[in-house]
Amino acid sequence: MTTFDEETSPRARLAEPGEAISYDELRLATRNHGMPLEMLDLDVTPPGLHYVLVHYDIPLLDPGQWRLEVDGHVERPLSLDLADLLGRPTVTHRVTLECAGNGRARTSPRPISQPWLDEAVGTAEWTGVPLAPLLEEAGVREGAVDVVFTGADHGVERGVEQDYQRGISLAEAQSDRLFLAHTMNGQPLLPQHGAPLRLLVPGWYGMAHVKWLVRITVLDRAFDGYQNATAYRITQDADDPGEPVDRIRPRALVRPPGFPEFQTRTRVVDVGSHQLRGRAWSGLAPVDRVEVSVDGGETWADAELGPAGGEHEWRSWSWTWQAEAPGRYELCARATDAAGNVQPVEQRWNRQAMANNHVQRVPVVVR
Amino acid sequence: MTTFDEETSPRARLAEPGEAISYDELRLATRNHGMPLEMLDLDVTPPGLHYVLVHYDIPLLDPGQWRLEVDGHVERPLSLDLADLLGRPTVTHRVTLECAGNGRARTSPRPISQPWLDEAVGTAEWTGVPLAPLLEEAGVREGAVDVVFTGADHGVERGVEQDYQRGISLAEAQSDRLFLAHTMNGQPLLPQHGAPLRLLVPGWYGMAHVKWLVRITVLDRAFDGYQNATAYRITQDADDPGEPVDRIRPRALVRPPGFPEFQTRTRVVDVGSHQLRGRAWSGLAPVDRVEVSVDGGETWADAELGPAGGEHEWRSWSWTWQAEAPGRYELCARATDAAGNVQPVEQRWNRQAMANNHVQRVPVVVR
Repeated sequence: MTTFDEETSPRARLAEPGEAISYDELRLATRNHGMPLEMLDLDVTPPGLHYVLVHYDIPLLDPGQWRLEVDGHVERPLSLDLADLLGRPTVTHRVTLECAGNGRARTSPRPISQPWLDEAVGTAEWTGVPLAPLLEEAGVREGAVDVVFTGADHGVERGVEQDYQRGISLAEAQSDRLFLAHTMNGQPLLPQHGAPLRLLVPGWYGMAHVKWLVRITVLDRAFDGYQNATAYRITQDADDPGEPVDRIRPRALVRPPGFPEFQTRTRVVDVGSHQLRGRAWSGLAPVDRVEVSVDGGETWADAELGPAGGEHEWRSWSWTWQAEAPGRYELCARATDAAGNVQPVEQRWNRQAMANNHVQRVPVVVR
Repeated sequence: MTTFDEETSPRARLAEPGEAISYDELRLATRNHGMPLEMLDLDVTPPGLHYVLVHYDIPLLDPGQWRLEVDGHVERPLSLDLADLLGRPTVTHRVTLECAGNGRARTSPRPISQPWLDEAVGTAEWTGVPLAPLLEEAGVREGAVDVVFTGADHGVERGVEQDYQRGISLAEAQSDRLFLAHTMNGQPLLPQHGAPLRLLVPGWYGMAHVKWLVRITVLDRAFDGYQNATAYRITQDADDPGEPVDRIRPRALVRPPGFPEFQTRTRVVDVGSHQLRGRAWSGLAPVDRVEVSVDGGETWADAELGPAGGEHEWRSWSWTWQAEAPGRYELCARATDAAGNVQPVEQRWNRQAMANNHVQRVPVVVR
């Protein structure tokens, strides 16, 4: 096993107070990309506008050569080609995906990593093959604990060389919620979304939805790989094992109104009545309330909710703003779900800025 | 006309020596996105992986309502709907597009704007309607000087509220090189690439290829709008009118070899023989030489060029690297075109970091 020095693969660290964005963070921001927030106008995010977070490189897999292995603690290991998978019965679901690190660059002190502001989200219509029947076909053996999903993407992260792997519990893997998607918005997956096949875990943050899937391994023990044990955890300090990141916490986003300034992205609207709108979602329970503030979170008003769609699909909302006086305003929205989870106005800090759903702030000039 | 204060719409400025990336720059980097450099493996860049730079918001235009006006200093103004344009004879060209600000974040001192590193590029197969016959149909009048292309995108930039507009000379507009594209890689344009119609000016930097095109206006004078007179110019100081940005200067990029480290993007390869490869392009003349360095530009070797493709399409190159000793290396490539333009190793600074084609630097660890 190669050891990597700090220059090549630095340890996780927090930015110093007031430390500006580093070139490492910029390099990640120019590669990965968020959803331009005006795309909150659309139910389904078009190709190339859905957020993308890729840990290593995007592999270009030959669909004719590609195979999916199902192995480990099973009676009958499977080796399937794409034609086999495309021939199976499918499900189609609209699913809102969000990166677990969304909002990271606005936490303080922030960890040095992919520096999302608010935009690491998107909704697509995914079509694929339910996972549970495949596991049944392979015959999960007594004593199975976790199921590990391995992608074809390979790299080194915090000194650990790895294929991207995530494990989930057998119970989760056997639920009827999970599926293996080969189609996104009616087209074969694009390279950056995991072509030819990826896992979908509706309701969970993006790290669970393993892309470029090549292997599903049933384990008779808990999976302790890097992405489960180290990376995607909610911790307070370096020694805290913390809690795993799993389901998406509630978040509402405002579609920035009016028109933007190029550099600051400040919005400009005229005095008058404006329909504010946006989307809200939660992986914990359906969103049943969205509130809007035009004074940076001092006072709130209830928005009107659009029709409820799929269980794991964002929900539209709207609210009419009477912008009566010229000046500077700050728009916010916050979501509450049916389980009573309320989006916090201020950050709830954790060391990797995971699952941080503090409210968005949209500066607006009324003229 | 509204006046915008500095907080809303700041003047152009240079970063202080050593000043890190600002949140304004990060906000632009999370919206706009580059081409992940592993996509240099592909002749044609897939949807969502081609670079995108949008000054304001992406407008969502209804193709059924959309019209293109051709007016100004013409005999017979035209008003065309999409069906009319789709019914006309088409041309299809593979065109490499690059943002004029590519490389900006690596200049010193850098201007505060979209902070590209090396990745603001992509190649697509564009299909559309030649421009010259449309101008002929409208009947350009005696005394015409410039032709202005107006997009549906609206915003404020350095205090100037505007629709995005770019002018070019009548002679350029009447060349057989320019066309109005409605199709990208065989599909209708995606919203972020200018749906339903955009201008293509093969060989020129991206700012000329006006997206969401709604109006073509022939002027009997030189166009002095913001994007021509102020934004896209090569200047040395705030008082220098400078030179306009136009054709793409030569650039070669290395497809980063091996596998990456997540945060630093340092590459890891084993001791041994590696085929380095990449692409090179120039809007001034065909690329006829690519050189490669593995020591940060100290020494250079000639790469082998792939087949020449379309006139404005990038060209592949390859070179075999015998990586004999473990250690740290820095890969570079530089392009020379048939007109003798050589890509500079060090930056040639200008105040807006336009057309800055200094060489890429790829850190690699050989193990």
